[in-house]
Amino acid sequence: MTSHMAREVAEIPQAAARFLDRARPALADTARALRDRDPAVLATVARGSSDHAATYLKYAVELQAGLPVASIGPSIASVYRRPLRLAGGACIGISQSGQSPDIVDLMAAAVAGGALSVAITNHPDSPLAQAATHCLPLEAGEERSVAATKTFVNSVVAGLALLAEWQDDAPLRAALEALPEALAQAVALDWQPLSDRLQDASHAFVLGRGPAIAIAAEAALKLKETCGLHAEAYSAAEVLHGPAAIVQARFPVLVLGVEDAALPHVRDTTARLAAQGADVFVTGTDAPGATRLPHVAALHPLVAPLVLIATHYACVEGLARRRGFDPDTPPHLRKVTETL
Amino acid sequence: MTSHMAREVAEIPQAAARFLDRARPALADTARALRDRDPAVLATVARGSSDHAATYLKYAVELQAGLPVASIGPSIASVYRRPLRLAGGACIGISQSGQSPDIVDLMAAAVAGGALSVAITNHPDSPLAQAATHCLPLEAGEERSVAATKTFVNSVVAGLALLAEWQDDAPLRAALEALPEALAQAVALDWQPLSDRLQDASHAFVLGRGPAIAIAAEAALKLKETCGLHAEAYSAAEVLHGPAAIVQARFPVLVLGVEDAALPHVRDTTARLAAQGADVFVTGTDAPGATRLPHVAALHPLVAPLVLIATHYACVEGLARRRGFDPDTPPHLRKVTETL
Repeated sequence: MTSHMAREVAEIPQAAARFLDRARPALADTARALRDRDPAVLATVARGSSDHAATYLKYAVELQAGLPVASIGPSIASVYRRPLRLAGGACIGISQSGQSPDIVDLMAAAVAGGALSVAITNHPDSPLAQAATHCLPLEAGEERSVAATKTFVNSVVAGLALLAEWQDDAPLRAALEALPEALAQAVALDWQPLSDRLQDASHAFVLGRGPAIAIAAEAALKLKETCGLHAEAYSAAEVLHGPAAIVQARFPVLVLGVEDAALPHVRDTTARLAAQGADVFVTGTDAPGATRLPHVAALHPLVAPLVLIATHYACVEGLARRRGFDPDTPPHLRKVTETL
Repeated sequence: MTSHMAREVAEIPQAAARFLDRARPALADTARALRDRDPAVLATVARGSSDHAATYLKYAVELQAGLPVASIGPSIASVYRRPLRLAGGACIGISQSGQSPDIVDLMAAAVAGGALSVAITNHPDSPLAQAATHCLPLEAGEERSVAATKTFVNSVVAGLALLAEWQDDAPLRAALEALPEALAQAVALDWQPLSDRLQDASHAFVLGRGPAIAIAAEAALKLKETCGLHAEAYSAAEVLHGPAAIVQARFPVLVLGVEDAALPHVRDTTARLAAQGADVFVTGTDAPGATRLPHVAALHPLVAPLVLIATHYACVEGLARRRGFDPDTPPHLRKVTETL
């Protein structure tokens, strides 16, 4: 029996290609509105995997557009009922289902506060899409596994494609055109040494810098949801400001390095944690004492971290079964989580 | 032998009172500059415990002023060397030492990008203070324990006091005047049932809503740093979007509830995790299956979460010794962490 998760991970390349093909008019329209607005701040609202996509977009926008991006806690609207001042700003809401009432409440508050509003969702008829002026439908097809995979990837792709049009960024546009092929290569890679180490593990850290921090957060959440493993994500710098205290002998650490300006610093953290005795697995670089995992090389630095998640998803699906879990039905979770 | 940490936790009330007494001129001057600027966005830059203080300030500013607050990753400046557009904004940098090069780099980038700049630091002659136009010295006195305690509390107090002056918020100002007394009560409270449960634990979650999310993050970091315990913080809503999958029988959970609009939702999450079999400890409310811990009641909702950390620090100092650690010298850490 193939799991839904395995099938949906295999569909990632074609789902990304479908979004890029179908979304052109919506991207052009939304990018034009952003250029006209020239916002002083971008707000994001999301939860779970969608919030990791928002974090990815935050780094991309700050790096490419120099614009501060504020992740607003949905509770500001849904619980505390406070108004937001966003007259010179824009707000992007991301939700696979588009249904969680708190996300919808905050999007409505952002609109009331004057924000240009964009929904990124797999359900363009959802309450979130209705609350926003602009919508980028994810075109991911139905996702039956509780753990989001192809919708996460397409959420990031949607954000990056919007950024490329908004900023008229030709290298990023070209990188996105080549992305489905890179994702296909990534899905086929094998992180067996990591899977072997995590088979009986109870803890792990997942680390990155820049946009890879968002991928570390997503990778750690999947290890929790589908493998019952207490994995926590940190910036590869932030981890040295305290959390490294619990990294003792054989503590498993996955470091998501890509070929960008942060790589020497990522390598330093990798070597330092290996020297503390940790079992460190790393992509993108060699480091003393660490095990290097394969990755798709020579990618644009704003798509390279995203491509890593495809390999991780494939690894996690198998690891879940090795650890005795059904990857499609994590304990205590449902596909649509509604919170206030 | 009393630890430095125990002495510094005991000093929290007087350190807070000293800041409030001495900072009046700097607060008035900085608040006037913020009113004149009327920023469209507030950026923050910090790491470790100081970043938790920044998260607390983010919720306070979003709730009281409706202004979006963006936490900017220091790497945008220190690693990626990208410019920031903050001409209509302000930037607050928080660092006990004021020395980490990445924090200083980002503050300089914010100033270059046009931001009104404020340093909150225990060292007003530090590079961070020199990079900013305005400085609020923490007045916490020397802190010798590696784990920040009184400097964390004073960082939050500084942010709240600035907000109170900036927004001319009389109830918040009054709550801050009464804060040293509330902190003195909190330091004397005993969370023995939590300490007993965590003595042999290897995992925990710490949960909150609103500003208490920042306190949950700080509480979890201290459990890592000083007790070697893998504690992770979540919003009491966000935890239901995936992480709750690892909450099995006897998984320890600390829920930081305070008397604010979120309390009914906090109670719901508490009851739900207890029903999954978790060992849940909660402040501020009773919930089926959970153990209630004492707290200082009837406080302003923007200071109530901060007061909880004083009790937690006292608990953690004893727990560290029960678990065989020296609370003053966590493994692998130094007092001043410098990252790029």
